[in-house]
Amino acid sequence: MVTMHNFLAVDAGGTSTRAVLVSPSGTCLGYGESGAGNPVSRGFRGAADAVLRASRKALGGSARPVHSATVAMAGASLAQPPGLLLEHLREFNPAQGITIESDLLAVFYSGSYHDAGHALIAGTGAVAARVEGGRLAAVADGAGWLLGDSGSGFWLGREAVRAVAAALDGRGPGTALTEGVLAQLGLQADPAVGASGRTGTLQQLINAVYGFMPVQLSRFAPRVFDVPADPVARDIMDRAAAALAGTLLAVGGGGPGGPLVFGGSVLTKGAPVAAAVVEEVSLRRPGARPVPVLVHDGVAGAAVLALKRHGIAVDAIVFGRIASSLAALRD
Amino acid sequence: MVTMHNFLAVDAGGTSTRAVLVSPSGTCLGYGESGAGNPVSRGFRGAADAVLRASRKALGGSARPVHSATVAMAGASLAQPPGLLLEHLREFNPAQGITIESDLLAVFYSGSYHDAGHALIAGTGAVAARVEGGRLAAVADGAGWLLGDSGSGFWLGREAVRAVAAALDGRGPGTALTEGVLAQLGLQADPAVGASGRTGTLQQLINAVYGFMPVQLSRFAPRVFDVPADPVARDIMDRAAAALAGTLLAVGGGGPGGPLVFGGSVLTKGAPVAAAVVEEVSLRRPGARPVPVLVHDGVAGAAVLALKRHGIAVDAIVFGRIASSLAALRD
Repeated sequence: MVTMHNFLAVDAGGTSTRAVLVSPSGTCLGYGESGAGNPVSRGFRGAADAVLRASRKALGGSARPVHSATVAMAGASLAQPPGLLLEHLREFNPAQGITIESDLLAVFYSGSYHDAGHALIAGTGAVAARVEGGRLAAVADGAGWLLGDSGSGFWLGREAVRAVAAALDGRGPGTALTEGVLAQLGLQADPAVGASGRTGTLQQLINAVYGFMPVQLSRFAPRVFDVPADPVARDIMDRAAAALAGTLLAVGGGGPGGPLVFGGSVLTKGAPVAAAVVEEVSLRRPGARPVPVLVHDGVAGAAVLALKRHGIAVDAIVFGRIASSLAALRD
Repeated sequence: MVTMHNFLAVDAGGTSTRAVLVSPSGTCLGYGESGAGNPVSRGFRGAADAVLRASRKALGGSARPVHSATVAMAGASLAQPPGLLLEHLREFNPAQGITIESDLLAVFYSGSYHDAGHALIAGTGAVAARVEGGRLAAVADGAGWLLGDSGSGFWLGREAVRAVAAALDGRGPGTALTEGVLAQLGLQADPAVGASGRTGTLQQLINAVYGFMPVQLSRFAPRVFDVPADPVARDIMDRAAAALAGTLLAVGGGGPGGPLVFGGSVLTKGAPVAAAVVEEVSLRRPGARPVPVLVHDGVAGAAVLALKRHGIAVDAIVFGRIASSLAALRD
């Protein structure tokens, strides 16, 4: 079923959207990025616009129609009729239409060409998936900042600001997080106690934090990684790792069941958290010592999915070609 | 300084507002209630309207001017100029003007006529105060649902729905909370796994919970008290109690420092939580075994404050008169 046409593959994420034009042999020919493409937070039209902009960049000036478009999006979009997105992408005239895939699956395939294994993703949100036969067999968490996302960037940021508030009124121990959080908010310490019975510092912190959308507290997650030796920060990282390990184990992850892929900034930029998740999984499932593959996004996996779904075998050579040609384009 | 006029005393709370007309001897002559009067959540005008409506009811048809008005409100209102509220209440023509007091202080004085002691309040939010010389000497928590309120009704409700979500996707143990939470939301169990890799039950729960304002999750707090024998509910109550004990200890509470007043539905309706807070304080401060006075709101305390602020001594007899005459009016 190999054709002369190329495939458009897109990873529409909560922070940015990435598109690649990939040949049937796995050579990435064009790459483009645009803004947030999560239909849950941006709405379906906003997400579709982001997909369109990234795709145009990936195709450059090429007017040649693509064989098909594969778009990886957050779970809830799987229920959307692909016709809506096809309408948005009609200028690429995909002969074989458009396929919406799970963004979790795309992250998994960014780290593996096998059709079974596990993925754990901790960015703004947190979710784990077990993949079987190239499909999502089980998903845990990903329930959003209020109901779940335990150990996510939001969760870390919220724990950081809560720890600072507790330190400021004596409910919790002093912490090196305070300096970083106050500096990020541009606040000066003001230890005078006002009529409310609170210090000026804490009152300013309260006023500043409630000016954010809750999910924006993920912006404070890096402050936890800034001070890894601080006991309060260490405790937050340990609890995040325990929660993430629990999420991974809930989908049956961590056992000898194929590759394990880690994605999202909490795991890819927060090395202590990733290491602690592996440690925790080893403790809770004796004998298992998973070696995770770290991936930064799902665009390579979207390309893998595009090829696989059209009957093209993706082996170590094709997978390596996708990875290396994509890296060259992104440099 | 005793005058022939009576005092208007109001407790403007997050759920309802209560006003009482009290004589210089402590006899409550009229009582009225209205809706939410928290200026943080309702805005200052909405809160002032609630104060006005409750006050009209308390005064009945009386056109006699009051000596003064004392209005207990959430902490942030203390920074508001009383002139705004006076303008709203001008029909009562308070000869000695209007005084805005802390709602924490009003709750404390609902349980004690002494001028030093401690209060711990856990309703939708959670806060502790140390009172010295009739003023707030220290306050801990009360930092709102996102930044604090550990152990509050919001916190309990959020932990309940998170525990149900975790039970539904296998991250957490099964719990009797699931039945109560699903029933409250009118959801039926649907164990079939959809394309998103989640059960229908969990997807419905996610859809329902994100339809609420976050702080409305406090509505689920009673589900925790419904199943006190459930290990997950028990753990949530234990963690709430530990957090509330920490908040109380942060203001120096729990020691032999005068009366201890407990307010808010989590402590007054959640007997296991109140008992566990006392237990936790005893463990963490050996020798202390506080016996809290439970109060339902701050309206009696607002009356105490009205009298005290105008030089009228409130002793056990006057305090008892306020309590008994108020109870008769509220029957």
